[in-house]
Amino acid sequence: MKILIVNGPNLNLLGTRDPEVYGSTTFEEYLEVLRSLFPQVEIDYFQSNVEGELIDALHAAQKTHNGVILNAGGYTHTSVALADAVGAIEIGVVEVHISQILAREEFRHVSLIAPRCRGSIIGFGLDGYRLAALSFL
Amino acid sequence: MKILIVNGPNLNLLGTRDPEVYGSTTFEEYLEVLRSLFPQVEIDYFQSNVEGELIDALHAAQKTHNGVILNAGGYTHTSVALADAVGAIEIGVVEVHISQILAREEFRHVSLIAPRCRGSIIGFGLDGYRLAALSFL
Amino acid sequence: MKILIVNGPNLNLLGTRDPEVYGSTTFEEYLEVLRSLFPQVEIDYFQSNVEGELIDALHAAQKTHNGVILNAGGYTHTSVALADAVGAIEIGVVEVHISQILAREEFRHVSLIAPRCRGSIIGFGLDGYRLAALSFL
Amino acid sequence: MKILIVNGPNLNLLGTRDPEVYGSTTFEEYLEVLRSLFPQVEIDYFQSNVEGELIDALHAAQKTHNGVILNAGGYTHTSVALADAVGAIEIGVVEVHISQILAREEFRHVSLIAPRCRGSIIGFGLDGYRLAALSFL
Amino acid sequence: MKILIVNGPNLNLLGTRDPEVYGSTTFEEYLEVLRSLFPQVEIDYFQSNVEGELIDALHAAQKTHNGVILNAGGYTHTSVALADAVGAIEIGVVEVHISQILAREEFRHVSLIAPRCRGSIIGFGLDGYRLAALSFL
Amino acid sequence: MKILIVNGPNLNLLGTRDPEVYGSTTFEEYLEVLRSLFPQVEIDYFQSNVEGELIDALHAAQKTHNGVILNAGGYTHTSVALADAVGAIEIGVVEVHISQILAREEFRHVSLIAPRCRGSIIGFGLDGYRLAALSFL
Amino acid sequence: MKILIVNGPNLNLLGTRDPEVYGSTTFEEYLEVLRSLFPQVEIDYFQSNVEGELIDALHAAQKTHNGVILNAGGYTHTSVALADAVGAIEIGVVEVHISQILAREEFRHVSLIAPRCRGSIIGFGLDGYRLAALSFL
Amino acid sequence: MKILIVNGPNLNLLGTRDPEVYGSTTFEEYLEVLRSLFPQVEIDYFQSNVEGELIDALHAAQKTHNGVILNAGGYTHTSVALADAVGAIEIGVVEVHISQILAREEFRHVSLIAPRCRGSIIGFGLDGYRLAALSFL
Amino acid sequence: MKILIVNGPNLNLLGTRDPEVYGSTTFEEYLEVLRSLFPQVEIDYFQSNVEGELIDALHAAQKTHNGVILNAGGYTHTSVALADAVGAIEIGVVEVHISQILAREEFRHVSLIAPRCRGSIIGFGLDGYRLAALSFL
Amino acid sequence: MKILIVNGPNLNLLGTRDPEVYGSTTFEEYLEVLRSLFPQVEIDYFQSNVEGELIDALHAAQKTHNGVILNAGGYTHTSVALADAVGAIEIGVVEVHISQILAREEFRHVSLIAPRCRGSIIGFGLDGYRLAALSFL
Amino acid sequence: MKILIVNGPNLNLLGTRDPEVYGSTTFEEYLEVLRSLFPQVEIDYFQSNVEGELIDALHAAQKTHNGVILNAGGYTHTSVALADAVGAIEIGVVEVHISQILAREEFRHVSLIAPRCRGSIIGFGLDGYRLAALSFL
Amino acid sequence: MKILIVNGPNLNLLGTRDPEVYGSTTFEEYLEVLRSLFPQVEIDYFQSNVEGELIDALHAAQKTHNGVILNAGGYTHTSVALADAVGAIEIGVVEVHISQILAREEFRHVSLIAPRCRGSIIGFGLDGYRLAALSFL
Repeated sequence: MKILIVNGPNLNLLGTRDPEVYGSTTFEEYLEVLRSLFPQVEIDYFQSNVEGELIDALHAAQKTHNGVILNAGGYTHTSVALADAVGAIEIGVVEVHISQILAREEFRHVSLIAPRCRGSIIGFGLDGYRLAALSFL
Repeated sequence: MKILIVNGPNLNLLGTRDPEVYGSTTFEEYLEVLRSLFPQVEIDYFQSNVEGELIDALHAAQKTHNGVILNAGGYTHTSVALADAVGAIEIGVVEVHISQILAREEFRHVSLIAPRCRGSIIGFGLDGYRLAALSFL
Repeated sequence: MKILIVNGPNLNLLGTRDPEVYGSTTFEEYLEVLRSLFPQVEIDYFQSNVEGELIDALHAAQKTHNGVILNAGGYTHTSVALADAVGAIEIGVVEVHISQILAREEFRHVSLIAPRCRGSIIGFGLDGYRLAALSFL
Repeated sequence: MKILIVNGPNLNLLGTRDPEVYGSTTFEEYLEVLRSLFPQVEIDYFQSNVEGELIDALHAAQKTHNGVILNAGGYTHTSVALADAVGAIEIGVVEVHISQILAREEFRHVSLIAPRCRGSIIGFGLDGYRLAALSFL
Repeated sequence: MKILIVNGPNLNLLGTRDPEVYGSTTFEEYLEVLRSLFPQVEIDYFQSNVEGELIDALHAAQKTHNGVILNAGGYTHTSVALADAVGAIEIGVVEVHISQILAREEFRHVSLIAPRCRGSIIGFGLDGYRLAALSFL
Repeated sequence: MKILIVNGPNLNLLGTRDPEVYGSTTFEEYLEVLRSLFPQVEIDYFQSNVEGELIDALHAAQKTHNGVILNAGGYTHTSVALADAVGAIEIGVVEVHISQILAREEFRHVSLIAPRCRGSIIGFGLDGYRLAALSFL
Repeated sequence: MKILIVNGPNLNLLGTRDPEVYGSTTFEEYLEVLRSLFPQVEIDYFQSNVEGELIDALHAAQKTHNGVILNAGGYTHTSVALADAVGAIEIGVVEVHISQILAREEFRHVSLIAPRCRGSIIGFGLDGYRLAALSFL
Repeated sequence: MKILIVNGPNLNLLGTRDPEVYGSTTFEEYLEVLRSLFPQVEIDYFQSNVEGELIDALHAAQKTHNGVILNAGGYTHTSVALADAVGAIEIGVVEVHISQILAREEFRHVSLIAPRCRGSIIGFGLDGYRLAALSFL
Repeated sequence: MKILIVNGPNLNLLGTRDPEVYGSTTFEEYLEVLRSLFPQVEIDYFQSNVEGELIDALHAAQKTHNGVILNAGGYTHTSVALADAVGAIEIGVVEVHISQILAREEFRHVSLIAPRCRGSIIGFGLDGYRLAALSFL
Repeated sequence: MKILIVNGPNLNLLGTRDPEVYGSTTFEEYLEVLRSLFPQVEIDYFQSNVEGELIDALHAAQKTHNGVILNAGGYTHTSVALADAVGAIEIGVVEVHISQILAREEFRHVSLIAPRCRGSIIGFGLDGYRLAALSFL
Repeated sequence: MKILIVNGPNLNLLGTRDPEVYGSTTFEEYLEVLRSLFPQVEIDYFQSNVEGELIDALHAAQKTHNGVILNAGGYTHTSVALADAVGAIEIGVVEVHISQILAREEFRHVSLIAPRCRGSIIGFGLDGYRLAALSFL
Repeated sequence: MKILIVNGPNLNLLGTRDPEVYGSTTFEEYLEVLRSLFPQVEIDYFQSNVEGELIDALHAAQKTHNGVILNAGGYTHTSVALADAVGAIEIGVVEVHISQILAREEFRHVSLIAPRCRGSIIGFGLDGYRLAALSFL
């Protein structure tokens, strides 16, 4: 089984930004942990701040992977185009959010992407990626 | 570790209602599967259609359990009182919804309960309860 | 044919509350009249102020009755859970409101229950129950 | 007793439009059935697609009939003028809708006419006209 | 000088409807008074309940009259087409409302017609027509 | 008969501000014209930019005048207190607006004052004050 | 092939109203041009300011024509009844608007009719009718 | 004089929940203080987390008490049924809220119950119950 | 202890305006009663219709009084500036409203001032001032 | 004449995604058809999923082409920046949408781009591109 | 060059209110600093809590000063009258806000005044006045 | 001191687009002026139409510059992701807008970016960049 994790804007800063809040673990370090937890799964990783490159990645994944774990960051709430891309591909996409977006500013309460996903995992911190991976197993 | 699953209104009908949609598994049958997956966890179960009895159950759980998995059903979207109860107790509560509520009627897009929960798992069918249990492990 | 009338919150006060407005007929007295009009129909009656008990009554009715006449009172406008219960059972439910709710406060203009019912009869006073019974004949 | 049925826009197409949905009964055929059910009542019928002609019909009816059964079709949701006409005449008007308008598009959830009517009967199909006639008896 | 008074839906009932509220003066009787107050002005009168006939009347008036006094009744709040007609003709149109529409139901607070009129006179009862006529002098 | 004209904020600038738009007539000059048109009426005038002083003037007027012509300027749309003052005094108040406020910015479409006034005259320029005076005669 | 062009309210004024904006071509003159462009198509024309007559025309057209080009003018934004008529007939209807309605007042941004049409052509001036005709070829 | 204090959902947790915020006084302890302040008044107490039981308590109180002090907790903002119960009984009901609900989340700004109460006392902490009792003296 | 009562716009009319509604007691007369009830408290009084003078009074009071009882009248719903003044001073401010503002027009349902006050007492008539004074004791 | 077709996000999937809905024609294949229909026009084509690259393409086109046919896909509803780009260039832009966006989800009812375009062609499937090209001829 | 700084409600408290937040510099002290930075500019200062006096000050300034720096405090968000005054005078007005109003309560996100100003400087603390002065140089 | 100016979409067209409105100065030319005004500051410049590249630039700047002047153009109103980027970096960001966005279309009244910035300078034309630079000095 091959899973692609797709992280959206600003998630490249994890570990260096507000470490007292988000911890000092970079996503790359967490990825090591994640891969060790699921030795039987091939986990690839893509991050971009460019909305269209995330769309490109989703398009490409349907030929190369069995599923996608998508944290679209700030594009979650505004990108019809990204939501269309999730809807257009035929492999399952699971939405992850590190923080409980429903407890933050009101413009973060809407997820355009959720209705197109297999499911959503919200508010568990980085552990959400583990739960998302488990949902494919 | 002791976990209490609290199911809200109409969830007692699982397995007998619209079996072609929801499957013919009753929640009691699923509970057997769940318990067998986690032999090290004591999993209790409470269901009620009465909002106030769900509040009572949450109050009581903080003395007897380590965590709660809560599917508040239709009260998710309307019950300030239930959300207050989640916020008032000191053990972690994880929200589960069987269907992707963000893809259904608009009045199901709001969760008053989510901001008070440790996290939310939405849209994975009954498998959401397994993922919720895993989030405590 | 067996029909269950289910009355929601505050409808137990009919006949004693604001008699100049609602008349001095209690619902029990009206029930006598109704039964005499339909000798061929077995008409049962249940009233509760507790939302969850109304849900329980609807669940139970599908095994014992051919149809339900439901006046959900104040829960009409707020209870997703009750509306889900109407949608979950397989016998026909007819909604009745004594007053013209569309001519009262704005929060009474929405009926969450109507979309799940066979039909709605609104504003005819107690006579609405007679019309609802006739709709089953 | 004389009752006037007033049908609004597009209701002249009943029976020929989407017969698999609405059945193949024209309103004229149904009218025969209705008249045979109530031999003691004189039931007249008027249909127009023109909003102002419906208003004219309501004005005239108060001198010639004892009551009106009104299905205002698409004007239900938009016509302040028609609602004013219902409010201006002194005989009772009963509102009928064939489909459950509260379960269709959101712009059909508002009835400007309901607050001026004696009562509303919604969602029973053509049988709603029978129930409306019964409400006058 | 020639002025056309155009009255919209239900205004034909003035004098016979709710006389304790609106008085027992018909508009025809009031018209006599109005004409006697302005012997130097030729005052014509048109009433229709049909929206399109009011539009026709406005189109025609620009060739035959110097100004229009328009009470569009219930169409005031809903008719984009009538407002377009007021905007399309080149003679001045003065809007009159008998009652203070801003103190009635909220859907009467919007006038689509006002922005296209020379001015609006609201809430003075029938005397509003006299003031409107004076605005042309 | 004694009438008080009350003008609100910025109306002291009439005649000097944007003369190509509002003309070069000051309100004092127009007042002369108005008084000459109604020799039988005593017309007093008060202007202030201070909301509370306008309220004071309305309170005082009910002991000294038979009616008030009120152009509340920008306070029309925001002042609950001024509207309360209009409602609290027992002499008639007629609202005047020089421009057609319904054709300007949306925040000018609401008049909190209109529902408490005998009537409103909107959009006739300075001539609105003449029409308002005529409404008292 | 037979096509019916149906024009709604105020479109009878084309060519005489605001010629510097809309040009001095009447619709009848443009119709000549249009017919000469499509000699193989029989193009009929109907205009009315009365909403119900437009509905009547649509009903009738389904027996006599292969398609309808509809410019509903001001009724586009308010008429549920007209939209229902478009949805009720079985021949294709193409919506045309001369101006870019999405760049005008906000109440013109909604088209109740568009969802029922085969397609919409907006903002091309009179040339939109040519494009609409081409869409049938 | 007999007064009934009715406390709604989660108020049973007072004194044990967040003692640094709400203090460590339980409501039962506070009740002792309150009774000692008003020796001439018989003060009864009822608490439930079940909406319908609160309605039952209000119904019953009108036969046994002279007034009710009601803190409806989270039901304040959502329960039409409870508000109807307050409106249906004939003894005075005074609303109390411990915290300033108008300074908390927006969904707490609406009180469906307030319009039916004799008065509301908001934000004074437990001392609000003393003030409410004083309002009956 | 020194308390300042600050009354806002139109409250100077109490006792003379609508005496059948508000009674014929002026606020000055009520003040005598209030002072006799609390001989140990020095109660001062200030009223103005001018928003800015109310702000000035609040600023000054923090040097001369121990607390303020504020009935801001119509400014309650509109004045950000007055709310800022309440928030800026360091002595406690208690909000009083004579009528139940939550049961009147919708624009009276918002209190910008409440979130900055120690507490709010609403709907008890003039007796609200007594309760407010008691809240300081 | 040179025309540039600019297609936005996800339109690269045409022909391979949901072929039973969108057909199995790729846009490249359709482009061949289109070019053969208009041998006298040079038709270029650009597609990108990146919003900013679409803006770049529009900027560049004004020096190289006579007009643009733009299908902005999901950016239609959210991109102020793309709409600004359409407004900033001096060659005509025609908007095309394959599906009737006004009949889909509500967030697709708004087009930020339409007000800046020469015209909009909506709902004709791929044939919309032919009609758009015809609008330049 | 002569510049007038106009400060609105509660800004007289700067330096004494919440010194840990706003610092202990009074505006008078800051004014000294500002004047020393711009020896070539005559800087006058006016503060009032009364909305109408701010309007008066703006009216007067156009005869005596070359520009105005306006911090309207709480009136920024509510005063149509003050905004009209800014629009009515012919000298440039620059808006200053000490705090970032777009990051505070939602009712502070609207500035009625900004559209009439030469520019707005928001969120730089007292330094905003220096930047505003620089904008005139 | 090193400052980076980041300009968003369409700002590359300054000087060539609508020169009668925006002047014929390109941003590069203005940059020369700006640099000559602040010889002691190193001013770098980055422009992109791609949202994600602006985010990349902000991320990079925190290692190389002391502050950022950001004109996000059309992304100001829609980009949660860009606002998150501003909030994530630790150097100060000052927002600039050339035009008074609060006086343009309503969708330009919201700035998602402002709450994360040190301050905002709006409506001063190109001179806003000078003021922004001065805010760092």
